[in-house]
Amino acid sequence: MTATLTRRYRFSASHRLASPQLSDEENRDTFGKCANPYGHGHNYVLEVSVRGPVDAVTGQVVAPAHLDGLVHDSVIRALDHRHLNSQVPEFAGELVPTTENLAVVVDRRLRTAWEQACPGGALQLHRVRLQETKNNRFELTH
Amino acid sequence: MTATLTRRYRFSASHRLASPQLSDEENRDTFGKCANPYGHGHNYVLEVSVRGPVDAVTGQVVAPAHLDGLVHDSVIRALDHRHLNSQVPEFAGELVPTTENLAVVVDRRLRTAWEQACPGGALQLHRVRLQETKNNRFELTH
Amino acid sequence: MTATLTRRYRFSASHRLASPQLSDEENRDTFGKCANPYGHGHNYVLEVSVRGPVDAVTGQVVAPAHLDGLVHDSVIRALDHRHLNSQVPEFAGELVPTTENLAVVVDRRLRTAWEQACPGGALQLHRVRLQETKNNRFELTH
Amino acid sequence: MTATLTRRYRFSASHRLASPQLSDEENRDTFGKCANPYGHGHNYVLEVSVRGPVDAVTGQVVAPAHLDGLVHDSVIRALDHRHLNSQVPEFAGELVPTTENLAVVVDRRLRTAWEQACPGGALQLHRVRLQETKNNRFELTH
Amino acid sequence: MTATLTRRYRFSASHRLASPQLSDEENRDTFGKCANPYGHGHNYVLEVSVRGPVDAVTGQVVAPAHLDGLVHDSVIRALDHRHLNSQVPEFAGELVPTTENLAVVVDRRLRTAWEQACPGGALQLHRVRLQETKNNRFELTH
Amino acid sequence: MTATLTRRYRFSASHRLASPQLSDEENRDTFGKCANPYGHGHNYVLEVSVRGPVDAVTGQVVAPAHLDGLVHDSVIRALDHRHLNSQVPEFAGELVPTTENLAVVVDRRLRTAWEQACPGGALQLHRVRLQETKNNRFELTH
Repeated sequence: MTATLTRRYRFSASHRLASPQLSDEENRDTFGKCANPYGHGHNYVLEVSVRGPVDAVTGQVVAPAHLDGLVHDSVIRALDHRHLNSQVPEFAGELVPTTENLAVVVDRRLRTAWEQACPGGALQLHRVRLQETKNNRFELTH
Repeated sequence: MTATLTRRYRFSASHRLASPQLSDEENRDTFGKCANPYGHGHNYVLEVSVRGPVDAVTGQVVAPAHLDGLVHDSVIRALDHRHLNSQVPEFAGELVPTTENLAVVVDRRLRTAWEQACPGGALQLHRVRLQETKNNRFELTH
Repeated sequence: MTATLTRRYRFSASHRLASPQLSDEENRDTFGKCANPYGHGHNYVLEVSVRGPVDAVTGQVVAPAHLDGLVHDSVIRALDHRHLNSQVPEFAGELVPTTENLAVVVDRRLRTAWEQACPGGALQLHRVRLQETKNNRFELTH
Repeated sequence: MTATLTRRYRFSASHRLASPQLSDEENRDTFGKCANPYGHGHNYVLEVSVRGPVDAVTGQVVAPAHLDGLVHDSVIRALDHRHLNSQVPEFAGELVPTTENLAVVVDRRLRTAWEQACPGGALQLHRVRLQETKNNRFELTH
Repeated sequence: MTATLTRRYRFSASHRLASPQLSDEENRDTFGKCANPYGHGHNYVLEVSVRGPVDAVTGQVVAPAHLDGLVHDSVIRALDHRHLNSQVPEFAGELVPTTENLAVVVDRRLRTAWEQACPGGALQLHRVRLQETKNNRFELTH
Repeated sequence: MTATLTRRYRFSASHRLASPQLSDEENRDTFGKCANPYGHGHNYVLEVSVRGPVDAVTGQVVAPAHLDGLVHDSVIRALDHRHLNSQVPEFAGELVPTTENLAVVVDRRLRTAWEQACPGGALQLHRVRLQETKNNRFELTH
């Protein structure tokens, strides 16, 4: 029997939305109040879903502590209580720290960590969901 | 990279559940207290999901203000603080304003508006989810 | 030791906000889209708080089933899946079914039922809280 | 038009996580504080999703009371306010009552009841989702 | 300026409601399905409120880490993933582990720890609120 | 009859916690990861409660649009999508933008606006509650 486990994590961060490829006016048109040069912030909610067979002995898809450690080490420690533009390497260049791009960064970090920790396993990283506010969220599904 | 954006909207409306094809007794049997001739109401929660590529410059799947305007103009303005049976044209005839049918109506209105606003685009209307109460919701997925 | 127990109940109803003492224009000015003659509706959340000593044997302030029965019989049965203006006697005259007035009506019904069921007891009806939407609620405290 | 209806149910239960195939030390390593021999408990949230065509007359995928009765009779009555290890037959042997396995048990019970109540119908049991805490949930999708 | 800080904690536990002063039948009458001899469990939500002046230098009522440590050491460690009747000393005798009594136990433990950690200070333990389910909570206010 | 109306507002902002009266090391000891020089951010939830008599004609404590306008003009416009240390005048000096101090600032702004808009009225600003995260909130009660 195959099941999907979803675990939820929280982190708080700040960002400024503005593309170096756009003029100040274009940035204001595109990002509105999110283009404020001083930045603003959010309480992000991250949901990580993994899918795989239920172990016949332990009755688990994965040990929760194992998944938590992997998510914490590869994602939460790098993002929590940080300014995304200034302190997260992926956003040091032209990549704008929208929640779409943040979800892509989280997804890449998780997949890399996952492939190192569980190479060739039956367990798969199934979905990354990132909520920016109660009214706004993004998903990447594999 | 393809991502799914989900945005949440709220509206309040009232309705009465009864089919003109059924007798009063059959309506009471089918719809229970929802067949009360004076009607009752709900705070509906609408989630609209769109799926598409993340723009390389803006880092967005779609401008949130663009989606909000489209949802507001085609759906919220017609449903919020309304009596569905009496004030929404789709329910003027035999269609019963159950939340299933309301989700179908919302979905049709959104797809029509979407095809006018973004014809032939890479961005797709992926899912409409309509919550009637905390314990009851309906989804249409494309 | 004195403790306060709060129990939560839900009901759905519809209403129209308009005062017979005001002109149509004044009603629109005062109640905005809530003055729509066809009405609209909400999922109301009612919280009832009672305060009293913890019983030395049962360890309870009140038997939950006792409170639930009293709230159901005196309030929920009369309001759930109803049109407040047309089907609740207190709103048959000039009283406008705002959530303030609905909270007052709920409070009166509960106090009357309470005094009949538990006359002279140490247990007191402490607070009635009525939530109309996630962003709007009313409280009466004794 | 095909729609998915999801209804939510709640139950409270207790369990102890330990496999008879593992030593005490292995159980503590695998299940941590959940291996406490005296057990602990949760408020579980169960979401049941069914998918099918919207009936042309009633505007419903399924009568909610019909689904509720089926879920209550086959699942809730057997699990609510129970000790899973001691009082649910599926966990009398070697099966550990993790939430993964509990979701599998719920899914089997629902499918059996569904096939008896609605054999060969267009309506399908689509997904069972079981939340153990706000930060932990499991899904089985058909 | 005096402010009230409220912090939220979660723990999961199991219990059985039955008084040694009552017969089996009286226990079933009083506690219903909660009298099940095998017990059941909940995800409890604990809110602790402290009230005091805002420090002119730090801008804090109390250091959050200080309060968290005190709550964890005196309450959470003793209750989380435990069977209340069997593993919490206060419930070893005749005291029934209702949520009322559990709130009283939590309150006493917190006040004792508080008086040792902050004797004679301006900061006061103001309120203990314990939620058993979404529909049921208890408060003790000082 | 006197009732209390509570309305909920949301805003997103960023801040850095560090007192100019403390050394870098003391700031790290006091504020932990919140002392990160680049700042971080939150989705704040603000609840404003006003208490007064229910108007005999309108059935309202206050017109919701009137309260919303006052809160928006005096508070939300100044704080939403801002960096509190750099863009809110009250935090330009030594005042650290903890949520305690932010609640005090919000409270002062609201009371000033209230006294200008409703001088000598029966309606009172009763409570300001500011939630920083799901697990942390502050209240000022009058």
